[in-house]
Amino acid sequence: MSDLLKEVLAANESYANEFGEKGRLALPPQRRFAILTCMDARLDPAKFAGLSEGDAHVIRNAGGRASDDAIRSLVISYKLLGTKEWFVIHHTDCGMELFTNEIMGDLLANSLETAQFDGQWKDVGKGPGSVEGKYVNFLTISNLEQSVIDDVERIRNHSLVPGNIPIYGYIYDVKSGRLIEVTKATEIGKANV
Amino acid sequence: MSDLLKEVLAANESYANEFGEKGRLALPPQRRFAILTCMDARLDPAKFAGLSEGDAHVIRNAGGRASDDAIRSLVISYKLLGTKEWFVIHHTDCGMELFTNEIMGDLLANSLETAQFDGQWKDVGKGPGSVEGKYVNFLTISNLEQSVIDDVERIRNHSLVPGNIPIYGYIYDVKSGRLIEVTKATEIGKANV
Repeated sequence: MSDLLKEVLAANESYANEFGEKGRLALPPQRRFAILTCMDARLDPAKFAGLSEGDAHVIRNAGGRASDDAIRSLVISYKLLGTKEWFVIHHTDCGMELFTNEIMGDLLANSLETAQFDGQWKDVGKGPGSVEGKYVNFLTISNLEQSVIDDVERIRNHSLVPGNIPIYGYIYDVKSGRLIEVTKATEIGKANV
Repeated sequence: MSDLLKEVLAANESYANEFGEKGRLALPPQRRFAILTCMDARLDPAKFAGLSEGDAHVIRNAGGRASDDAIRSLVISYKLLGTKEWFVIHHTDCGMELFTNEIMGDLLANSLETAQFDGQWKDVGKGPGSVEGKYVNFLTISNLEQSVIDDVERIRNHSLVPGNIPIYGYIYDVKSGRLIEVTKATEIGKANV
């Protein structure tokens, strides 16, 4: 068993020992909202948005992008579990701004091992790569504000999303912990409401 | 501005006011691991796995499934940001066990509005639906243990995933807060290591 696995299981043991009444929480989110945000390690949505267990759905992927899979999750969140408001939250200093599909495709074709970054990406590992990366859209970000606007708009216009659900677009500042407004729920796709 | 939005922004203000040294955290996860788990509101991965800001990537979707998008995120996590161990964590009482693609497709075709569940799903809302739901794979779960095994195996065998990365499969028990082991990293896809 790795040291990391031991640490995670020990932390879980402590958490479970103090679990108390949380075991009685119902499945649907009590505060009836959902957050789509990035997987970035510096972000803790429960802390930065004030969530307790049971409050809200949290969907996370690389970039916090409105991928088909994020929309699958949001549709389940609304249709079956009754959320009524959604947040799309990207963040400053996002890794998704540091590469393009072409760069990632080339890196993966060269080697699957972890690359290094010193202003540009360099493969230090050797050996087997795969051209499969050239067929993936990694949903990189070239303009942070625009990526929030694009994602809110994509969700807003999706055929499985009701036109009247508020979708709030924000950027989380990793230097300050603050949420910065990008789009008001009413500003994007107003025609569809 | 909705009451919910006010609450979230007020909580964020409090968090940012106590942010301190967290503004100096680096982009790559310090503890070099990633967790893929469900969006369920009752799960707080930072709490149940003992994460501080900056420690680990957290990827979440409906079910915690190894979708193409989750794998996109994991590949970025390893190739560019250096994570070395991954967890796949599904959970008891998951909403994904309560429907099938067929049920969801029919519900959405009838109405986009939130349905009610009393042993079976019923649409109480009226009007506009969309057949688009019939073309989506919602990645529902019929056997919880098997879904963890399937997802670990899918990731293990993916052409962009290095063969030697440990992938731990667990079920989180929402009644106790405990992680229950399903697969050891070494048990699945051993032939590929």
